[in-house]
This record gives sequence, structure tokens and C-alpha cells, in this order.
Amino acid sequence: MNRPNRQILLAERPDGPLELHHFREATTQIGEPGPGQVLCRTVLLSIDPANRAWMQGRTYREQLSGGEVMAGFTLGEVIAGELPCGTVVACDAGWQEYAVLPTADVRPVTVRGELTHYLGALGLNGLTAYFGLLEVGRPGPGDTVVVSGAAGATGHLAGQIAHLAGCRVVGIAGSTDKTRLLTEQLGFDAAVNYRSPSLRQDLRAACPDGVDVYFDNVGGSVLETTLSLMNERGRVVCCGVVSQYDTSSPAPGPRGVPGYLVAKRLRMEGFIVTDFLDRWPHAERLLATWLADGKLVALQDIIEGLHNAPAALIGLLKGDNVGKRIVRVGSDPR
Amino acid sequence: MNRPNRQILLAERPDGPLELHHFREATTQIGEPGPGQVLCRTVLLSIDPANRAWMQGRTYREQLSGGEVMAGFTLGEVIAGELPCGTVVACDAGWQEYAVLPTADVRPVTVRGELTHYLGALGLNGLTAYFGLLEVGRPGPGDTVVVSGAAGATGHLAGQIAHLAGCRVVGIAGSTDKTRLLTEQLGFDAAVNYRSPSLRQDLRAACPDGVDVYFDNVGGSVLETTLSLMNERGRVVCCGVVSQYDTSSPAPGPRGVPGYLVAKRLRMEGFIVTDFLDRWPHAERLLATWLADGKLVALQDIIEGLHNAPAALIGLLKGDNVGKRIVRVGSDPR
Repeated sequence: MNRPNRQILLAERPDGPLELHHFREATTQIGEPGPGQVLCRTVLLSIDPANRAWMQGRTYREQLSGGEVMAGFTLGEVIAGELPCGTVVACDAGWQEYAVLPTADVRPVTVRGELTHYLGALGLNGLTAYFGLLEVGRPGPGDTVVVSGAAGATGHLAGQIAHLAGCRVVGIAGSTDKTRLLTEQLGFDAAVNYRSPSLRQDLRAACPDGVDVYFDNVGGSVLETTLSLMNERGRVVCCGVVSQYDTSSPAPGPRGVPGYLVAKRLRMEGFIVTDFLDRWPHAERLLATWLADGKLVALQDIIEGLHNAPAALIGLLKGDNVGKRIVRVGSDPR
Repeated sequence: MNRPNRQILLAERPDGPLELHHFREATTQIGEPGPGQVLCRTVLLSIDPANRAWMQGRTYREQLSGGEVMAGFTLGEVIAGELPCGTVVACDAGWQEYAVLPTADVRPVTVRGELTHYLGALGLNGLTAYFGLLEVGRPGPGDTVVVSGAAGATGHLAGQIAHLAGCRVVGIAGSTDKTRLLTEQLGFDAAVNYRSPSLRQDLRAACPDGVDVYFDNVGGSVLETTLSLMNERGRVVCCGVVSQYDTSSPAPGPRGVPGYLVAKRLRMEGFIVTDFLDRWPHAERLLATWLADGKLVALQDIIEGLHNAPAALIGLLKGDNVGKRIVRVGSDPR
């Protein structure tokens, strides 16, 4: 197709904190889908801490290299190829306006309501919060659940799901504006600011019965602090390590690993949301019902224009976002 | 009873490495058992890394204090009180010749064969190895199982049980004498020396298919190294942290926690053997059968005389022991 496709490339892998000069813009021609492929027009781009982690090393995907189109989860509209034109699909098209993808790698989405939710509360973040909390953390009614990155895309949902499960929910976030939002608008029982020098005392006061489940999005010193307050047989859901992504020399691990694990018989467990793929439809229905009923509030932080994606990611790593950060790349197909 | 009871007290809690001057001998009178109590004569005293951990802080028991009789697991003979005289009991009588204990806190043992095994392969070490490996680690046939502290009281049994479960078994120990013993006499498929500067390469070579289950007795840098070689969905059985016991300033935790846990969906889980109390009889029967059939070799390291207990523990923390270290305090009742 003889039309331009604007892209943002990872110019080079960062050594220290991610900066604008690590990216560069490029323009190619839109590709033609072959057999078994579709051509997607990107509508929305998900901005995630994982984008930075992919630059650090191999995870559940290969490490990103300089010169590649920056990777990212997207919602797009099929405009040519094996699927009907106009089909909305969730995919991994990266930071570009158009992408040719194997049909097997895109997932058609039936959209009801706001499209943006399908990258957040009704997409990977909602599913991650749901399965991480309920299947890995397995809280019981009355348990104290602590969530870090609690004002983030996954954290604010995990906390609300814990609340729906009958738990006492305590959020950890990076500003008093965020902690206030959690308690005043999202039903958290308490929230503490991890930048406070009295974090340990604050968290202890917020968890008078100790911590049964810790949904950890950040790792590092916040994990170390929370481990020291865990109850016997507590569970740590290892969802992300935001505190250690924006560097090429991650800090040593938390003291108390494995000491606390032995003494208090704790379980720490990592997961990724695709481990539960066969049960996504059930969770998606529940999440949609909660959202429609107002039992789940989905915070969104939408930024206009693909060219703003690098700044959007850099800001996210500094904690600028509240809720799900999305870059709108193209117009809504509906 | 107007007879002397020789004891060893923890004179003061150590700040750094444990030394002889942290202990002192004392003599009191033997107590009289009241209602609901028994008087036990100590026959064998178990020397365990946990003895040092109890000085560091609260675990599943209160922290030890200066001036107390040093705590320790024992096998004794009831000589007065609620149980028949001559009953052999497993208990927690501490480092002394005689102890008055609540009857509820002693566990009668039916002895067949060597008494010493009831502090090791047929006692807490055997049960710890059995439940930790099979219930927490859950290896499948053909899995690669790595055991650290592999020539220690629990480790050498855990490795052999993994072998009986059809796994490839790799031991980590602190000398070439020990690694040779593991492969030549205990059926380990490979063994590496953690003091080697090429530990990571050695371990990688010994585990060509990666590591599925890691039975960790040591924590610290050996845990960090092994984590980097774990396969997706691997399990780390957190049994002990010997590398961090003989200090009052434990090192930071392993790098890669929680990063590896997320990226590779690992589970790290602590346990203590009493979590499985209801299933001890089944495990004890199996362990006894394996031992009698020669499928399980129980290494023992027996030291004579209560007065040698401090040196025995100090040496154990340096890795001097091979297999189960026991101090013989009194004569065999049989």
C-alpha cells in the first residue's frame, strides 16, 4: 500500500534511565497482508512499565534491540487481510500507525462501551489484577490485602477486586493525591505514601492485623518493608518490579528473602496473565459486569498522538500517571 | 531430686559469628515432675543450623536470650512422671542432662534399629526433606532438582528422595570431598562446590536442562545463582538460610527477587515440618522402609559429650559436618 506508516523506533537500549533520545521517529510504507495475515490500523497504544522491562533483558519475550519498532500492546482495526474489515482486535502491533500481523496473533474484541477499557479494566490490566489477586494471592474474607503501585493501571483494579472479595485493602502509592484518591474514590480502607520516611510505621498502622496477601507491582524496598509485616502463611503475588525497571543495574533483592519465607512460611509467586488464558472469558464477563454496575471504577489517563508515546512512557516510569495510561494513535473505528 | 543436672547456657547472644565464650556451663538440681509432666534424661542432642537462627530473632519460636538453657531438639528417656519409665521420647529439652517437660510436649518414639536415626533420617531432618521436596517442591519425573547444603543433615536426604522420585539430582556443597561423596555414595547425578569461583558455570553445566526445583538450605549468593538458572514455572523450596545465620547483619537478598519470579513465573515457598504433622506417620513409614532397604543412606556425624555441644554447633556453621551432627549426652536406654 503506497501510504506512509509513521513509527517510533527504539534507537538504542538505555543504560540508565530512559530518555527521549533513546527513541526516534521513522516513516515506512504500509505493508500488504499475505496469506494468514491481517493489516491493522492502530487506534490505541497501551503504555506499560513492562515496555521498559523488555529493554533490560529477556522476559516472556525476547529483549528489545536498538533499531526495532518499539514494542507495545495495542487495540487496532483490521483494514485488510484475513479478517473482516472493521474488526477490532487486541494485538502487539508496537509503536506504529499500521502493522501487518499473523492472524493467529490478533484477538478479536467485541466492544461494548468505551474502547479504551479494552486496554485497561477489560483488557490485560483487569485480567492481571483478577487472576493475580484471586488465583495467585487467594485471599479469604477479612484478610488484609496490600497493593503497591496502587494508583497504577493494574494496582487500582487489584485493590478494588480485593475489596469486592471482602478483604481489608491497603494501597501503597507515591503521592498524597494518589493515596487520597484511593481511599476517597476507590474504596480502599487505607493508603500510605511510599516516599514517606515513616513508610514502615505507616504501613504497620494501616495493617493492625498484619498482611495476608501482598500484591506487589514494585519490588525493591517497598517489598522488603511489606515482607517484614506479613503474617504466617502469607502470599506475595509478584506482578511487577517497577522500582527496578528504569536502570541497567537493579538493586540487590530485599533483605528477608528467604529468611522471612522460612520463618513465616510465606509463598512468593510470579505469574503472567496468559497463564490463565483458558479462563479469560469468565473473568472478562465478571469485570464487565462490575464495571457496568459501578462496582469497579476504571481510572484512565489518555494522551493524544503517537509522537507523545516516548514522553508518556518516561513519565509513567516516574509515577506521573494515575490509572491506565493510553496513547491515542488513530480515530475510533465506530 | 537431689542430684546434679549439668547444663549449657547461652551466656549472651552473639553479635557476629558464634564463639565458645557465648556459652557457659552451669549445674542445677534435677527437677521433680508435677501433674501433667515428665522428667527426661537426655540421650542425644541434635545440632542444627536453626540453633543459631533462634539467637537472631523471632522465628516459629521466641528469640533465645542470654542466661537461658540453650535450646535444642533431643531424644530422651522418661525416668519419672506421667509416662512409663524407659519410654523414649523426642522433645525439645535443650542442652542439659535432664529436663522436666509437659507431657504434651514430648513425642514417644518406637525405636527399631539405631536410636541416632530418630534425630536424623527418621526424625525432623527426614521429615523436612520429605515434605519440603515432595509437597512444596512437587517435582515430576525427569525434573532437575538442585539441593544446596547437600551434604548436610537435611540436604543429603532431600537429594536421595528426589532421586527416588525419578529426578536428575544435583548437589551443591562446600568441598570436593563432599561433592565426591554425593556422587559416589549417595546417587547424586552431579555435584558442584559453591566455593568455586566458577559456581555459575559449573552449575549450568551440571543442569543442561535448567533447574525445575531448587531445595534451598542456604539462601544468599547460592540462591541468587540458582535463581538465574531456573526454568519457567520452577519452584524454590525455602528450607533454611544457613549462609545468613552466623551474623547479626544478614546480607541483602538475592538479585532477581522478584524480577526472576515474574519473568519466569517462579514460586518460592517457605515451610516448617510441623505444617505437615498429620501426615508424619505415613512419611515415617516410608523413610524407615527406604532406610532398611538401603535406598536411603543416612550420614551421621556423632560427637561425644554435652560439653562439646558449643564447638559442635560452631563447627556446623562453618560446614565441618558431613550429614547429621549429633551430640551424645547420655547412655542408650536399651
